[in-house]
Amino acid sequence: MNVLALVAVVAAIIGLAVAVGLASWISKADEGTDRMKEISGYIREGAMAFLTREYKIMIIVIVVLFLLIGFFISWITGILYVCGALLSVLAGFFGMKVATLGNVRTACAAKESGMNKALKVAFRSGAVMGLAVTGLGLLGLGVIICVLDLATVMECVTGFGLGASSMALFGRVGGGIYTKAADVGADLVGKVEAGIPEDDPRNPAVIADNVGDNVGDVAGMGSDLFESYVGSIISAVTLAAVAAVNSGGMFDEATAALFPLIMAGIGIIASLIGIFMVRGKDGSNPATALNMGTYVAGIIVIIAVLILSKTMLGSMNYAIAIIAGLVVGIAIGKITEIYTSGDYKSVKKIAEQSQTGSATTIISGLGVGMMSTLWPIICIAVGIFVAYATAGVYGIALAAVGMLSTAGMTVAVDAYGPVSDNAGGIAEMAELPESVREITDKLDSVGNTTAAIGKGFAIGSAALTALALFVSFAEVSQLSAISLLQPIVIIGLFIGAMLPFLFSAMTMNSVGRAANQMIEEVRRQFREDKGIMEGTSKPDYANCVDISTKAALKEMVVPGLMAIVAPLAVGIILGPEALGGMLAGALSSGVLLALMMANAGGAWDNAKKYIEEGHFGGKGSESHKAAVVGDTVGDPFKDTSGPSINILIKLMTIVSLVFAPLFVQIGGLL
Amino acid sequence: MNVLALVAVVAAIIGLAVAVGLASWISKADEGTDRMKEISGYIREGAMAFLTREYKIMIIVIVVLFLLIGFFISWITGILYVCGALLSVLAGFFGMKVATLGNVRTACAAKESGMNKALKVAFRSGAVMGLAVTGLGLLGLGVIICVLDLATVMECVTGFGLGASSMALFGRVGGGIYTKAADVGADLVGKVEAGIPEDDPRNPAVIADNVGDNVGDVAGMGSDLFESYVGSIISAVTLAAVAAVNSGGMFDEATAALFPLIMAGIGIIASLIGIFMVRGKDGSNPATALNMGTYVAGIIVIIAVLILSKTMLGSMNYAIAIIAGLVVGIAIGKITEIYTSGDYKSVKKIAEQSQTGSATTIISGLGVGMMSTLWPIICIAVGIFVAYATAGVYGIALAAVGMLSTAGMTVAVDAYGPVSDNAGGIAEMAELPESVREITDKLDSVGNTTAAIGKGFAIGSAALTALALFVSFAEVSQLSAISLLQPIVIIGLFIGAMLPFLFSAMTMNSVGRAANQMIEEVRRQFREDKGIMEGTSKPDYANCVDISTKAALKEMVVPGLMAIVAPLAVGIILGPEALGGMLAGALSSGVLLALMMANAGGAWDNAKKYIEEGHFGGKGSESHKAAVVGDTVGDPFKDTSGPSINILIKLMTIVSLVFAPLFVQIGGLL
Repeated sequence: MNVLALVAVVAAIIGLAVAVGLASWISKADEGTDRMKEISGYIREGAMAFLTREYKIMIIVIVVLFLLIGFFISWITGILYVCGALLSVLAGFFGMKVATLGNVRTACAAKESGMNKALKVAFRSGAVMGLAVTGLGLLGLGVIICVLDLATVMECVTGFGLGASSMALFGRVGGGIYTKAADVGADLVGKVEAGIPEDDPRNPAVIADNVGDNVGDVAGMGSDLFESYVGSIISAVTLAAVAAVNSGGMFDEATAALFPLIMAGIGIIASLIGIFMVRGKDGSNPATALNMGTYVAGIIVIIAVLILSKTMLGSMNYAIAIIAGLVVGIAIGKITEIYTSGDYKSVKKIAEQSQTGSATTIISGLGVGMMSTLWPIICIAVGIFVAYATAGVYGIALAAVGMLSTAGMTVAVDAYGPVSDNAGGIAEMAELPESVREITDKLDSVGNTTAAIGKGFAIGSAALTALALFVSFAEVSQLSAISLLQPIVIIGLFIGAMLPFLFSAMTMNSVGRAANQMIEEVRRQFREDKGIMEGTSKPDYANCVDISTKAALKEMVVPGLMAIVAPLAVGIILGPEALGGMLAGALSSGVLLALMMANAGGAWDNAKKYIEEGHFGGKGSESHKAAVVGDTVGDPFKDTSGPSINILIKLMTIVSLVFAPLFVQIGGLL
Repeated sequence: MNVLALVAVVAAIIGLAVAVGLASWISKADEGTDRMKEISGYIREGAMAFLTREYKIMIIVIVVLFLLIGFFISWITGILYVCGALLSVLAGFFGMKVATLGNVRTACAAKESGMNKALKVAFRSGAVMGLAVTGLGLLGLGVIICVLDLATVMECVTGFGLGASSMALFGRVGGGIYTKAADVGADLVGKVEAGIPEDDPRNPAVIADNVGDNVGDVAGMGSDLFESYVGSIISAVTLAAVAAVNSGGMFDEATAALFPLIMAGIGIIASLIGIFMVRGKDGSNPATALNMGTYVAGIIVIIAVLILSKTMLGSMNYAIAIIAGLVVGIAIGKITEIYTSGDYKSVKKIAEQSQTGSATTIISGLGVGMMSTLWPIICIAVGIFVAYATAGVYGIALAAVGMLSTAGMTVAVDAYGPVSDNAGGIAEMAELPESVREITDKLDSVGNTTAAIGKGFAIGSAALTALALFVSFAEVSQLSAISLLQPIVIIGLFIGAMLPFLFSAMTMNSVGRAANQMIEEVRRQFREDKGIMEGTSKPDYANCVDISTKAALKEMVVPGLMAIVAPLAVGIILGPEALGGMLAGALSSGVLLALMMANAGGAWDNAKKYIEEGHFGGKGSESHKAAVVGDTVGDPFKDTSGPSINILIKLMTIVSLVFAPLFVQIGGLL
């Protein structure tokens, strides 16, 4: 088996080598003027300082969980937990470092050489994150499989997933609070109260805002995808034994455990090809290049899967399950676009309703968000049905692996957006010509659209991965059924369904509190130093960065711990069956709430942009003001609470899975 | 058994007789000036016309469902279905007729005799609704038990519940859309744009607004409580066989089926005593009188239950289950108050956040709504645990019966609010002295607070009743387990969790569309007839009433049908197990969403009132404008979508229960 595992390891190493190569290529690109260097230096420092402090806090969590796991479960699981956490940190550090090198170089490329070069620099910065995430994830899992014997792997590998998930939740929540506090603070006081443009250097919160893009949209998103990626592979590995039994001797456990790793390895190679296909042509739309890369990577994976399914597992059924997953992911992405893009009627409707004030903007946006859950849920239901019918629960896990196999490419597309956004900010602050900002704006807006498929994959894979892990949890807990006719299961279901609501409330309130501190600080600086607005004295950027940092680090603790403590408490007090109910409740209400919040947020954002394009009165009109309210409400929805819920669901499931032996032993205190 | 059943029938008849007596007492009270008579005549006509047209549409639903039930299930069930629907109609008609007689007489009493007399008239008008709902509900069930043999009752009585539930959903949705469309239309154009006060006779939508209070808050609420009341009793009756088996021969099936009816009968008598204890004393707070009545009724029921549990069922365990239900209901009511009353920090926080604009008002309100789900869910979980531990699933049903046994009293307190509100509107329109409005405002605001316990009972009993019906559904479907480890159950769970979101989206969008039509019409009237604002010509009230009526009737159809079609479709296509998953998913996400929407709406409402009391700038300030946005968003939350979800959950469960034999026969097409 080690030979096949080596394929995965080699693919991972190739991916990482290319990432390092790209990083070095980026670092050699021109950084532009001294002013640009200075500004990007602030951003990089602020971002790296936040990450360092965040990880320092996380060390406490890591140590405590390591000891708990080691003591109650097994020390190998504990060590793998630490490995998962550390690789997540490494991927985050490396990816964000390069993103903060790439932003200023994208601005410079836009200034010196135009759109194509800027696209190349920005996209390659994103690609480093994509390759770091997938390369390190697969390398970690590949080495584990090479080093440990199969039985140990299947018992302990969940520790690795727990490491990735726990870092991801804190990263997403912390980064999300940081970015939205800075964003809301900068916008409300700078744009609305003082009337200065976005990214104006006179705004004290402007650096914090740009730092936020990096720690939230790059590092937070990266750790999120790292956990999704390894989570999906691990969910398939833990079901390998079940799959082997169900196959009736067509393949053994080892093959079933290796299959997702091989797929992931092929996915990395496919992503590499996709990444190098992205090159802007003169006069062509950058979206074409990005989509082309995504499609090519996807097609390569599909072809490989068709061959592998037959050769390794002896049946095409597994390929059908995987392709079903891919189709579901793409479909959810497309549906997301229909509900959140300005080209379709939902967003236009919200913009139209903005004419009667912000109340109708909010009502219609919430309506769109809630309505937008219908078809994605039907898609997920069909995906589960097809995957299960063709390949059992193992098929459900494989469907998620299929969606995420080209994560190298989808993360690249996702991370490229904030890099372009940052480049625009630097251009504005360094007072580069208007043309530079136009290029970066164009790149940014393209990124928003092409990221839709990535979002579909994120939510679809979260549902499928959590479901597969849930089945593994039942296996380990020796539960042959978790029946809804047992009131204890219904009690768990209610509690579980409540948790995503509670979690969203916490994170939204956190953003509110942190944003308020930022608003106060920006107002204070404007009030106490009149020179700032006149441009004669420099605002205190560092203080704003510090406020966002401290607030985010403080506020991320409670929601993060809740995700770990809730399953432990229910498992210990009410027992494994109730915990099963809880996981199912959190899964169902969490997926719904995540869809609703992400789509409502996206729709409000684009309704505002639609009005800014000149509809219903355009920029500065009453409709626009109402739409800005919608957008501000949508910010924590789509960038803090919504995406964190995806991780919450999986983290709670994997905590339950890792600690299942303990719960079985205790059997519920009540 | 008929002798004991007669106790219930006799109690029901006593309740109804008192209702008729109170109605006649009210109709004899002074109606005031000709202007008052004219205005109240408009309101009464508009309300009765709406109800008549609503019921005409409902006849189609009734006939179709009757034929479906008769053909596929049994004709007796079909007939009981029609009986349930017709008694719901009767309760709605009678209760609302008296409420629309009571409003003008309350205004007159406030004018002629002051607070105490006004309280008496308003409360007695509400009491008629309370007694009509409970009396007709129990009379229907009592007669069924007297006339049919036990086996037929237990097989077919669910039809009666389906009749009540289906009418309730359409009534709540239709009434909710009506009242909020008129309210938003009247407020946005009249108060905000034209700057005229609430209930100003120059506002063309003012009559529609007052009609809305009756069709939404009186008739809609009445049909809602009618279905909760009979639903809880029926859920206990259907579990009688299970209870008898589990009791180990302590009592038989017939006793178990009769026990909830006897309890309900005692509840009516207790409510009567409570109702007659409500009499204002000079200088005392009306809230004291109302609370006293509620507590006395509750205490009488508890004492009776302690005796009955031992004598009829041979154990105190059943009393413990029922008391657990009562405690949970009261606790949820109290928690609701903490999150939604201006005396506590959540509402103050929202008011404070209104200072930074409407976006922060919305974010903090949603945060409060989501946060407010934590403790009610814990309460429900504890309630289920205790009820099940002491008395099995039958105990869960009994806990709901316990909460609703004094519905006569709680409905009276609930319905008294809108009667007082209407009285205030009439006083304003008839230009009565300011002191009259002060009295009615005081009565109204007291009603809002005392209604909290009723809301706690409504949500708590909905969760418990739905759960009990769900267990009955599994019994009838011959499912010994509905395991979450079956992917088909998870598919059902996802679909079920989505339905309350879809339903809320539909109803919120309906309110939006209907309100827009109303806004256009009011603007048109102001524009085309300048005499309206000058007071020289009368606005066209009838046209606004007509718009609300037509819009509500049109918009209620799709969400109403969805609730009936969804379980049928899932049951037929995916089979009973998937349907079980769906019901559990809808139950869990529905209870959460209902809690969130109701509490966020209530909190926004009171945050606005808190600012109006002079905090954070007071009426007319920027904070107040932001708070008004919150209140407007909260309107469809708390008065349309939120309360309808409670019914949705139960209606889908009871549809599944009635049609379960069909699903078992088909076994799922897929």
